[in-house]
Amino acid sequence: MASSYGYPFEQQHCLSISQFSRPDIETLLALGEYYLDLSVQKSPDNRILTGKTLVNLFFENSTRTQKSFEIAGRRLGADVINMEVANSSVKKGETLLDTAATLNAMNPDMLVVRHGSSGAQALLAQKVSGSVINAGDGMHEHPTQALLDALTIRRHFGKDFGGLRLAICGDITHSRVARSNVQLLNMLGCEVRLVGPPTLIPSDADRWGVEVYHNMEDGLEGCDVVMMLRLQLERMSGAFVPSKREYFHFYGLDRAKLAYAKPGAMVMHPGPMNRGVEIASSIADDPDVSLITHQVESGVAMRMGILHALSEAQDGVA
Amino acid sequence: MASSYGYPFEQQHCLSISQFSRPDIETLLALGEYYLDLSVQKSPDNRILTGKTLVNLFFENSTRTQKSFEIAGRRLGADVINMEVANSSVKKGETLLDTAATLNAMNPDMLVVRHGSSGAQALLAQKVSGSVINAGDGMHEHPTQALLDALTIRRHFGKDFGGLRLAICGDITHSRVARSNVQLLNMLGCEVRLVGPPTLIPSDADRWGVEVYHNMEDGLEGCDVVMMLRLQLERMSGAFVPSKREYFHFYGLDRAKLAYAKPGAMVMHPGPMNRGVEIASSIADDPDVSLITHQVESGVAMRMGILHALSEAQDGVA
Amino acid sequence: MASSYGYPFEQQHCLSISQFSRPDIETLLALGEYYLDLSVQKSPDNRILTGKTLVNLFFENSTRTQKSFEIAGRRLGADVINMEVANSSVKKGETLLDTAATLNAMNPDMLVVRHGSSGAQALLAQKVSGSVINAGDGMHEHPTQALLDALTIRRHFGKDFGGLRLAICGDITHSRVARSNVQLLNMLGCEVRLVGPPTLIPSDADRWGVEVYHNMEDGLEGCDVVMMLRLQLERMSGAFVPSKREYFHFYGLDRAKLAYAKPGAMVMHPGPMNRGVEIASSIADDPDVSLITHQVESGVAMRMGILHALSEAQDGVA
Repeated sequence: MASSYGYPFEQQHCLSISQFSRPDIETLLALGEYYLDLSVQKSPDNRILTGKTLVNLFFENSTRTQKSFEIAGRRLGADVINMEVANSSVKKGETLLDTAATLNAMNPDMLVVRHGSSGAQALLAQKVSGSVINAGDGMHEHPTQALLDALTIRRHFGKDFGGLRLAICGDITHSRVARSNVQLLNMLGCEVRLVGPPTLIPSDADRWGVEVYHNMEDGLEGCDVVMMLRLQLERMSGAFVPSKREYFHFYGLDRAKLAYAKPGAMVMHPGPMNRGVEIASSIADDPDVSLITHQVESGVAMRMGILHALSEAQDGVA
Repeated sequence: MASSYGYPFEQQHCLSISQFSRPDIETLLALGEYYLDLSVQKSPDNRILTGKTLVNLFFENSTRTQKSFEIAGRRLGADVINMEVANSSVKKGETLLDTAATLNAMNPDMLVVRHGSSGAQALLAQKVSGSVINAGDGMHEHPTQALLDALTIRRHFGKDFGGLRLAICGDITHSRVARSNVQLLNMLGCEVRLVGPPTLIPSDADRWGVEVYHNMEDGLEGCDVVMMLRLQLERMSGAFVPSKREYFHFYGLDRAKLAYAKPGAMVMHPGPMNRGVEIASSIADDPDVSLITHQVESGVAMRMGILHALSEAQDGVA
Repeated sequence: MASSYGYPFEQQHCLSISQFSRPDIETLLALGEYYLDLSVQKSPDNRILTGKTLVNLFFENSTRTQKSFEIAGRRLGADVINMEVANSSVKKGETLLDTAATLNAMNPDMLVVRHGSSGAQALLAQKVSGSVINAGDGMHEHPTQALLDALTIRRHFGKDFGGLRLAICGDITHSRVARSNVQLLNMLGCEVRLVGPPTLIPSDADRWGVEVYHNMEDGLEGCDVVMMLRLQLERMSGAFVPSKREYFHFYGLDRAKLAYAKPGAMVMHPGPMNRGVEIASSIADDPDVSLITHQVESGVAMRMGILHALSEAQDGVA
């Protein structure tokens, strides 16, 4: 049992990577690893959230992330309530803050929120008494994805991130996954690179503490991890990208490009994938080079760890 | 623990306020208060419904009410099953009674139902063996809303409703909330007033045991509680109401109109609100005069109390 | 308690009737009956799936079947996760196998799947580590429906299926219910007939081990059970069926046609019914001849039995 873990984790919310100290991150990853071990042993349940209510509040549709949190919450014994807000109550004229006030009055202990506007969860966190967990806000952050990615890397490469070189490739500009990952991987001491066409690299990337590359061969050179991002298909036929085919030719990950990475390099993708656009199926489905399904498995375990830590912080256990 | 409470509560269903005796109501409010206390103590769970199945059957969409019942049921340990029927199975040609027969055969213990037709739940109650709880039927009744409103009032003003003067304001004609509240508040001994434009006051209101006012200043005079109703926006541009702006001018609650009520008067609204239509944001969001989020909190607790009472009646505990 | 039941049930999945041996079927029906008895005693819960995750993955909409599995899973204490996939993630370009890989990585113990393509579940079963339960695949099989129908028949007529004559009537061609039932009822030793217009009888029916009839009077002669199938309304105005009215005239079950069956014959229908199309309301609603609501009740119990058996096979208990 990991009911206490030495370091006093005292965060009320999980809003962004930048809010956490290095020891916070170590605590979270250790808890994620604990639940990943339990899951492998096929006895993943540990009903420490019995009697607590987790509301899964999704203003944007995301089956994968929502189900990952739902399974994580239920395995810990929480009462999990799904709310897809979509347009319905927005149409009825209710604001985000009305929704927050209403939900808060129902006394949820955990509020997992995905919202299309950057900063929405930070605003919510000021208005509610439970813990807010950011499951993606606009183009800003997706901290639980970064944590599960780090857990996946640690599981494969060991606890010492210091010697690792990673390339994050594709549509960086619109990616909250990239923003959260860069922060976390930098904090853990990795060498991080961004690779993508100039139209998809944010103009302030030089201040992110990374190196920027515009071709895959240079960018992947010597990398331990190649993290591909989902290309939003709606950006395909516009100013950003000429065509799927041309995109794949220059930036899609295939064997030829992967050969530039270090021998033993591993491939990641947050899903869902556009096969044949940003990644070749032969790479995605090859268990010798792909960590993609491990990321999903780490996702449930990492979220159990996050819920565990926040719950103990609530109860003053830590 | 409130596993027994003196008075023998023997109701099988919760269909309308008129079905309950005064002692029934007192029992329900006492149970609601019990769960509200538990909730404040942050240990709201009391798994007395473990092994019981609650089906949340909504023929009309209502996130707020459905989630309130879902949380209430789960906190009591019930297996909660959500069914939004919308038009899907109606399109498949299945009738309300087929749905009822199907559900009944799955042996739910509690059936929470919202339906667009007045009396639908009463019909259902004759066909099923579990307890039917009316979560709103057409323009007829919404008894759990009236009970949670009474619980909210009692929490603020104390158990003696006898000396209280209340105004229910706005679209009375189309409001099941108003119908249930008038009955319950009359039974509890309050002085109840209806305030609204003649087009939105039902023609038989003189037989409801209330006083009717057509302007807010007169209607609110000396009131302890001002209960605003949601104006259905689809009635805005028709025979009922000339425009949002004009409606707010005459019937929207703002500081100037509220000044006619008694000092210390409190404002209620069943939600979701149309801000700037029936109520000013400055009133709705002022914790010194607004009980609106307390109503939501009371909603979960009151529904736990109702489920508790019905469950014990089923088991012959009472 | 039925935690062990003599015969070693060792099936990992429930994909089709043809995968089961006669003793497998007997074990499943005995477990179904056990849970049906518990349900009648109003103490249906038996939390043997606590800590296990059941994912209800529906690529086709079916409230009835999905809720039946959800209730079955929850009554056994499982964490039940509903996923309606519809077109959303298909639109996002994710394939069935990506969905399977993603889900599998979340380590569900049970995966209940409905899919529009015949064989989809068999494909899935090769890719996942948990148990796959076929809740209907294209026009292929619906094995849990056949098992619940057999349980319903056994409950009414006793364990000896050998002397029973059954007619399955209506749209056989498009019916996975018919395909699974014919196999199961043949295995149990019943005499099975198919009755329907030539356009709705599959061309290979002569190899199914049944007798085929094109008029109801001949087909129902001497039958113990008349099993009506749902006529898909979209087939109404096409090459298959001239009109609802004409269909009812020739193939709809009414008193006159039922009179050809054996005295004491019982009527079944998998639901949802088209009243006045394939069945008269006066038959459907007559508890003396209709087993339709018993089928729904058997459905929950039978699915509990199936989950129970698969879970014990997983744990190596059997």
